Amino acid sequence: MLDRFKVPKEDQIRISQDSLRASVTAIFKKMGLESEDAANGADVLVTADLRGIETHGVSNKMADYVRMYTSNEINPRPEWRIVRESPGTAVIDGDRGLGIILGNKAMSLAIEKARSVGVGIVTIYNSAHLGAVGHFSMQAANEGMVGMCGTALGLGILPTYGAVPRLGTNPISIAAPAGDEPPLLFDAATSAVAGNKLRLAARVGADLLPGWVASKDGTPIMENAPVPEPGEYHMLPIGGTREQGSHKGYGFGMMVEILATMLSGVLPNMVDPSAKARHYFAAYDIAAFTDLDNFTSNMDQMLKTLRETKPAPGHDRVLYPGLSESEDEQERRANGIPLHQEVVEWFDDLTGKLLVPRLVRM
Amino acid sequence: MLDRFKVPKEDQIRISQDSLRASVTAIFKKMGLESEDAANGADVLVTADLRGIETHGVSNKMADYVRMYTSNEINPRPEWRIVRESPGTAVIDGDRGLGIILGNKAMSLAIEKARSVGVGIVTIYNSAHLGAVGHFSMQAANEGMVGMCGTALGLGILPTYGAVPRLGTNPISIAAPAGDEPPLLFDAATSAVAGNKLRLAARVGADLLPGWVASKDGTPIMENAPVPEPGEYHMLPIGGTREQGSHKGYGFGMMVEILATMLSGVLPNMVDPSAKARHYFAAYDIAAFTDLDNFTSNMDQMLKTLRETKPAPGHDRVLYPGLSESEDEQERRANGIPLHQEVVEWFDDLTGKLLVPRLVRM
Repeated sequence: MLDRFKVPKEDQIRISQDSLRASVTAIFKKMGLESEDAANGADVLVTADLRGIETHGVSNKMADYVRMYTSNEINPRPEWRIVRESPGTAVIDGDRGLGIILGNKAMSLAIEKARSVGVGIVTIYNSAHLGAVGHFSMQAANEGMVGMCGTALGLGILPTYGAVPRLGTNPISIAAPAGDEPPLLFDAATSAVAGNKLRLAARVGADLLPGWVASKDGTPIMENAPVPEPGEYHMLPIGGTREQGSHKGYGFGMMVEILATMLSGVLPNMVDPSAKARHYFAAYDIAAFTDLDNFTSNMDQMLKTLRETKPAPGHDRVLYPGLSESEDEQERRANGIPLHQEVVEWFDDLTGKLLVPRLVRM
Repeated sequence: MLDRFKVPKEDQIRISQDSLRASVTAIFKKMGLESEDAANGADVLVTADLRGIETHGVSNKMADYVRMYTSNEINPRPEWRIVRESPGTAVIDGDRGLGIILGNKAMSLAIEKARSVGVGIVTIYNSAHLGAVGHFSMQAANEGMVGMCGTALGLGILPTYGAVPRLGTNPISIAAPAGDEPPLLFDAATSAVAGNKLRLAARVGADLLPGWVASKDGTPIMENAPVPEPGEYHMLPIGGTREQGSHKGYGFGMMVEILATMLSGVLPNMVDPSAKARHYFAAYDIAAFTDLDNFTSNMDQMLKTLRETKPAPGHDRVLYPGLSESEDEQERRANGIPLHQEVVEWFDDLTGKLLVPRLVRM
């Protein structure tokens, strides 16, 4: 993540991951979730915070989830069901359940199918926010599989040349296990900048860069500028302008719309604005393609080559997707998760009201 | 495709697609291919030209293929074989066969598996250039499936912050059938600009735009500039710079490397520069997810919504991936394919030498 998005040091309070996990789990249980679901949901959020993905950790998402459960916009006890199934595929009606809860179940089903026929694909419709899609790809990677996951929801992103937003930020991810190297985990919104990053930038007072958003008439804003007020801008696909490749970002957004929405058999938000979130999960059983040892050895050689690539002038090193996040995770497991003091105050207020464990400062 | 890449009108000669197909098929047969393979290979190239994908049509690729067959760098009669298989997956050793020939067979196998278990995934290693990857995604779409295809080969693209190229242009594609609307077909290199586009730009004398390539030390060139001499630049991932999202382009390139290379059980070119091309094919049987009628109706509503989106100032209309290519195809089927006169001269020379049908001007 670019430095501009990080919580300034003077505003940080370090919280142990165990404490954060305990509080979030307890809050979810107060929202009506079963214990296992509450713990799974907390794992999605806390893992994002551990890995430095603040956009999808508790800071940006917890208040939303509490609001949606409290208003009954989402269902704490979804009776999800498989509506169509084949040996390698399944489609699930999520019964308005939050994606961070249902995702674990869907990827488990994809993994089970992959063990049986080599690959498993599961889609969900009628659900809500999925959190960091990389989380579920990693669930497959931890089982000796290549995992992919994507989600489609919302209407914030302009198609190239368009003046009216038609797509969600539609993130997609892939994870693959390695041997000695940290695993590869790529997880990116197909918008120029993730929706949550705009809120994070507003919170830390950071400017946006050229090509990240467009004015309301669809014209890309090509200068450094503060985050406009909500409703005063539209978001752009990866690339920003056609010349810089926005048609590719738009295409990747459509790829997610096909995999998550069309393969769920439902309509996207651009046709039905009230449509709930759609998700896509894929598990590829590595053993169906090659020996797992061979795969992880090949991965190690590839990832080491990337990591040891000579950097361009002005840069310290070359990363691969997932490397710095693995380093963050090690550091934060030891030293705690740096939350913005306003976030900690929000937690203190809520845990006080709900009579559940408050956050423990490190 | 941006106007700067198009063949200038004064240099165009229009050739009928039937004539181009006949000459290319005959040339391939002279290279030692069996008749059906020669016709399949011609179909990949001519379809690209019909759809306005000059980068992957005869202009940029035919001379390469002839050179590679003539030098025995690729095998005109590959004895390809399945080295590992499960109900939903297969890995193929391509025996140095050209991808444009093997691709059809691999996607047919993926389609067959998808009919049986809902989804089919096939990878190929030890192969050569695959042509327009969208061609094979469309093969699945024409069978009532969602198709995906990607290919990994070469060492032209820098990882973000890197000074040494590590990836190929690693294109990926997805196709999905619609009802009344032309199908969605997204096909894009994960580099800022396709490798063939640089050659095309050099041929038509077009400048490169900022963020498309880097100087040899890895620093992105951020001004309009002529195409540098080969060896004097490196290519960048989609996004160009980190601030404009090159880490996402780099990640999508790695996604293709995982799917095509790692799931073939072999090493990428960054570790083994001599490694032949690796390909990835996926077919999702729509009927395993939802009724095909429902799917195509949903597609129509989505694609019509995109097509009818109000454009931003300065633009005529909003496209979706595959729309302008479908329009080009209609026009070119009627009026012929506009080839650069130098390309036609090259064909005349070769067809004369090989004693096969020459191109017929329209």
